[in-house]
Amino acid sequence: MSNSTFLYIVEIIGTFAFAISGIRMAARKRFDLFGAYVVGLVTAIGGGTLRDLLLDVTPFWMSDSIYLIITAAALLLVIILQKNILRFENTFFIFDTIGLALFVVVGIQKSIALDYPFWVAIIMGTLTGAFGGILRDILVNEEPLIFRKDIYASACIFGGIVYWISFRMGVNDIITQILAAGGVIATRIMAVRYKWTLPTLKSEEDL
Amino acid sequence: MSNSTFLYIVEIIGTFAFAISGIRMAARKRFDLFGAYVVGLVTAIGGGTLRDLLLDVTPFWMSDSIYLIITAAALLLVIILQKNILRFENTFFIFDTIGLALFVVVGIQKSIALDYPFWVAIIMGTLTGAFGGILRDILVNEEPLIFRKDIYASACIFGGIVYWISFRMGVNDIITQILAAGGVIATRIMAVRYKWTLPTLKSEEDL
Amino acid sequence: MSNSTFLYIVEIIGTFAFAISGIRMAARKRFDLFGAYVVGLVTAIGGGTLRDLLLDVTPFWMSDSIYLIITAAALLLVIILQKNILRFENTFFIFDTIGLALFVVVGIQKSIALDYPFWVAIIMGTLTGAFGGILRDILVNEEPLIFRKDIYASACIFGGIVYWISFRMGVNDIITQILAAGGVIATRIMAVRYKWTLPTLKSEEDL
Repeated sequence: MSNSTFLYIVEIIGTFAFAISGIRMAARKRFDLFGAYVVGLVTAIGGGTLRDLLLDVTPFWMSDSIYLIITAAALLLVIILQKNILRFENTFFIFDTIGLALFVVVGIQKSIALDYPFWVAIIMGTLTGAFGGILRDILVNEEPLIFRKDIYASACIFGGIVYWISFRMGVNDIITQILAAGGVIATRIMAVRYKWTLPTLKSEEDL
Repeated sequence: MSNSTFLYIVEIIGTFAFAISGIRMAARKRFDLFGAYVVGLVTAIGGGTLRDLLLDVTPFWMSDSIYLIITAAALLLVIILQKNILRFENTFFIFDTIGLALFVVVGIQKSIALDYPFWVAIIMGTLTGAFGGILRDILVNEEPLIFRKDIYASACIFGGIVYWISFRMGVNDIITQILAAGGVIATRIMAVRYKWTLPTLKSEEDL
Repeated sequence: MSNSTFLYIVEIIGTFAFAISGIRMAARKRFDLFGAYVVGLVTAIGGGTLRDLLLDVTPFWMSDSIYLIITAAALLLVIILQKNILRFENTFFIFDTIGLALFVVVGIQKSIALDYPFWVAIIMGTLTGAFGGILRDILVNEEPLIFRKDIYASACIFGGIVYWISFRMGVNDIITQILAAGGVIATRIMAVRYKWTLPTLKSEEDL
């Protein structure tokens, strides 16, 4: 299996997981089916879309309808599972984390292929992974979770740094990608398990 | 009257109607005159701007100042009507619906002219019609209405499908556009009249 | 010192001031350190990023990492000052206003250099100055302040008009920029001092 086929498959898994997270959030807000589909889609493709706009390339989903289809499948799954969905909480978490890791790798790769410096690539990887969730929270009119809960974007940045170190050391492409993705996944899982949080700034009102 | 003159005129009507909807929402939130103007403008041009960014063409309003002038006229009208504005509720609804329909047609046309596949064109048509209202709701910090109330974006998609079928059947351009716009208008009016709604997802909290 | 070096330095001062305003807002919402950094960064670079996307040029911060570093410095300063930050309220206001003025000038210049008409340049100047703060308010889920409080964007537009008049009268570039920036600063300071506000639209609910 070639590197790009591999990436394509993981991108689809990530899309599926992200779409489910958006659809569930929409359900909690009692959006209708169409609204839920849109929120799922935006959660799944929002990060990559902003990345592609910034990199000035055609947004990835405009040349392949698979992302729309995957989001429809995610909606179907949420409808079918209904009551039982909470039982799969851990499964979703794993998929979501894998999706995050893969999105980061895809974002970094795409930026490097366009000759951007590594610090831009790491930002693009983080945007690809984390911006969809920010858009989801804005659409449902919630304060973006990412800014208050768990080590989400930080995991993306850590994975990006792993990518960069591995790349600089001349490690083979596929292994570099696996290391970076592993870095994201490990950071996120440990952060949730051990309840890692970043310190918050002291508010002026406390003083 | 040429096809493009016709489209230009309807685009202006749509801009006017959308700007009014944004300005009225801003008034309800007690925004100042400038804020109301901006919300009106964003409601009117937001959808087309996102479409043009995604299609990588210069945003339409940057080459013609008419859209800024139309928004100013909409602001003036809202100020003049003041107390009497509610009497025109039905008129606004009709204009808004016509605007929506035309925006959808413009979005589809522009995408097809750039050789995008039809499913992209339908998304672009829907974005052109519906995204301005989403931006409006985000700016005034409301949960986007579109995800909970009436068949709005669904009407855009339906119109897009009508466009596609008519186009595939080799129907003349102007008639195709009229059919598609008619599809949007009819769906939206019937949806409001007969209180059509899409089913909502069952929330996990209900279970 | 050349014109572009001068502009570069003022852009950095503006970035610093805008980042601080974003970080303080995030602190009030108890965002974690990473969240505060992101909100600070978005406040500082959001306006210029939208401008560059609309003008279809590479977003300015993607070719110079200084903006990320400046935002980190701003975060550090907020952490260090902590309790004492309120004492510097007036200093921040001055910096913020200078930053605003400079951002407006940069936005106008960039648009003119790309041969856009002046009304587009004035919009781009205003976006560069004001959009970052709108994004900040959306990210922390507040109704954008700009639409309700003080003469902020109006000061940008006034500065833009000063630029245009001075440019049309054939005044030297540097002087034109200083006049425009001075126009923004004077308007904003006087607006705050004399509590200038724009009238609000009468809400339909009052009637």
